[in-house]
Amino acid sequence: MSRFPRLETLPTPALVLDTDRLDRNLHRLSARMAEIGVTLRPHMKTAKSIDVARRAFPDGPGAITVSTLAEAEYFAGYGFHDLTYAVGIAPHTAERAMRLRKDGADIKILLDTVEQALIVGEAGRAAGVTPSAFIEIDCDGHRGGLLAPDPKLLEVAAALQADGVAIAGVLTHAGESYALDTPEALEAAAENERAVAVDAAERLRAAGFACPIVSVGSTPTAHFAKSLDGVTEMRAGVYMFFDLVMHGVGVCSTDDLALSVLSTVIGGKPEKGWIMIDAGWMALSRDRGTAAQRVDQGYGLVCDLDGRVYRDLVVAFASQEHGTLAIRSGSSEPLPDLPVGAKVRILPNHACATGSQHERYHVVSGCEGTVTAEWPRIRGW
Amino acid sequence: MSRFPRLETLPTPALVLDTDRLDRNLHRLSARMAEIGVTLRPHMKTAKSIDVARRAFPDGPGAITVSTLAEAEYFAGYGFHDLTYAVGIAPHTAERAMRLRKDGADIKILLDTVEQALIVGEAGRAAGVTPSAFIEIDCDGHRGGLLAPDPKLLEVAAALQADGVAIAGVLTHAGESYALDTPEALEAAAENERAVAVDAAERLRAAGFACPIVSVGSTPTAHFAKSLDGVTEMRAGVYMFFDLVMHGVGVCSTDDLALSVLSTVIGGKPEKGWIMIDAGWMALSRDRGTAAQRVDQGYGLVCDLDGRVYRDLVVAFASQEHGTLAIRSGSSEPLPDLPVGAKVRILPNHACATGSQHERYHVVSGCEGTVTAEWPRIRGW
Repeated sequence: MSRFPRLETLPTPALVLDTDRLDRNLHRLSARMAEIGVTLRPHMKTAKSIDVARRAFPDGPGAITVSTLAEAEYFAGYGFHDLTYAVGIAPHTAERAMRLRKDGADIKILLDTVEQALIVGEAGRAAGVTPSAFIEIDCDGHRGGLLAPDPKLLEVAAALQADGVAIAGVLTHAGESYALDTPEALEAAAENERAVAVDAAERLRAAGFACPIVSVGSTPTAHFAKSLDGVTEMRAGVYMFFDLVMHGVGVCSTDDLALSVLSTVIGGKPEKGWIMIDAGWMALSRDRGTAAQRVDQGYGLVCDLDGRVYRDLVVAFASQEHGTLAIRSGSSEPLPDLPVGAKVRILPNHACATGSQHERYHVVSGCEGTVTAEWPRIRGW
Repeated sequence: MSRFPRLETLPTPALVLDTDRLDRNLHRLSARMAEIGVTLRPHMKTAKSIDVARRAFPDGPGAITVSTLAEAEYFAGYGFHDLTYAVGIAPHTAERAMRLRKDGADIKILLDTVEQALIVGEAGRAAGVTPSAFIEIDCDGHRGGLLAPDPKLLEVAAALQADGVAIAGVLTHAGESYALDTPEALEAAAENERAVAVDAAERLRAAGFACPIVSVGSTPTAHFAKSLDGVTEMRAGVYMFFDLVMHGVGVCSTDDLALSVLSTVIGGKPEKGWIMIDAGWMALSRDRGTAAQRVDQGYGLVCDLDGRVYRDLVVAFASQEHGTLAIRSGSSEPLPDLPVGAKVRILPNHACATGSQHERYHVVSGCEGTVTAEWPRIRGW
């Protein structure tokens, strides 16, 4: 094998990352945030890779968001010390986060109850550090967090202050924006997210509490917010790679999708209009996030080796190590002629889920067809 | 940490394997197969663990099925040389399988076309070995394989013989049985699977071809077959652990489920009837296999630390690292009181998918609550 193997020589299934598209996606959002004057704190839960983080921060480590303490420890080990761990804290994670803080990382944690404030205070004292905590705000009812007018907001802030925990600020996530698909609805969701977070921050400040950071974020609202007045930082993750769900939401085109799964044809049932490939749900994930969208992409949209989409050809079914390609129902497109051994690339529904099925990225630049690097991914908790 | 940590001290989310249940499940099917007189060739795609394989074969390595060549190489490295790689062969996998054969493993591959026969013949000659191939038979239209009366069956057999490839036999898989849920339907599916495989074998033999192995298998049909006359081996995998899909099919009770995901409560929304846990789809998988069954289990059924099911409490929603517990709609069961830090165990929809999200099993025996071992899992291709 040469120094730079050809894409078609890789064992399959294999996760492919196109850095031309990655760089374009990174630039698009960072330019937008710079224009609006808001810090971008990328969520590394999608990429889980130091190489991708370095691509996002070519001038050296910056502020990032993580979804696990394994990610926090990994990125801190590479100098990314400004971390937000954006999952509600529990006793064992509080202890572990405070050990990381003791080791020099400015890790901020997330909570929305007085009991969690006490847990974090206790963990901080045990480690001999001052914890820093975001209060989670609920902007659209999809998960955790407090409503901005909820009197518990000030109770939690008071408990943090009383227990020696610094208030990092407020943090919200418009998870419901993933279900939208018009610019108007996305702009409204972004404005709601902004307004709720700023409202919560103002209520804290009016009651005499500090609230330095006002953090919002989801990939759709990041791209559709008209104003972020009062917001200080934006979190987004999947924007680096994009995926078919984001395409269905209307945030990107299929040409923006930086991630794909290289796969080999292993059989066919021409009489049924089926082509079998070696990428099943183990390689693609079980995520069917486009099933509820206007265009159901099955388990993914099929491209040729150079990344050109076969019109209306999707992974219609998936078992563990088998995918079945078929033309989308209602389409009159012909089934392409793909014999055993032919290579295809599958654009995924959900980049976070598909990425997590793989140990590494095989890195290509556009249509050049050579694999210039392998970038490992981390997993686990 | 002591030699045997308590379950509740593990970092979460964590994959837990109960060997009492595993052993009972292993014994149940091996006893049934011994009674019927058919070799059990377990599919290791669910467990992906040498420790589980050794539990299934306490007297030393036996015949197994694998879904990837990474599994084949891994198990061969531990002395499991009698292998069936039950995914359609392509040029690059043929070469790799023949290297493994050259190294001493009796690996049998799978195909259903003349072009694959030529690929395998060529790979055998290049490696200096005689390949051994199953012809895949389609018993229920769900994936690949030839219909038994299809004239291509004899054409493929002739191509194998002409190209110096040994015919291992015929192999079929009743994948559609997963959609059934009555004993009558499962018995009929098992009898159909048997009859189709035997028919194909007899057609080969009548035409003068050898067909030593007649291989059938799926966990539902393995447990419901009344007769396996003419069949020589049974493949099944998920029976070792069982899962909620198999429970919905009617093959097992929830007390048979050997796999669970230990998780910690990280918040709640009592006004909505929600409890938040740190097991999202990254820990549980995106598999929603029970969605189409009579009882939809969400992303999993919730148990206490000892494995006792909370009636009607399911993981109703999942994001990457968050699960939301709620009482199943239509039930009047009360929401249990689970404060931040409390531990639960989630029974998975699909053991193969949930297992694949984890690097290792934390092994317990029944309700003893101590983790007696960590068993690694393999992944990748």
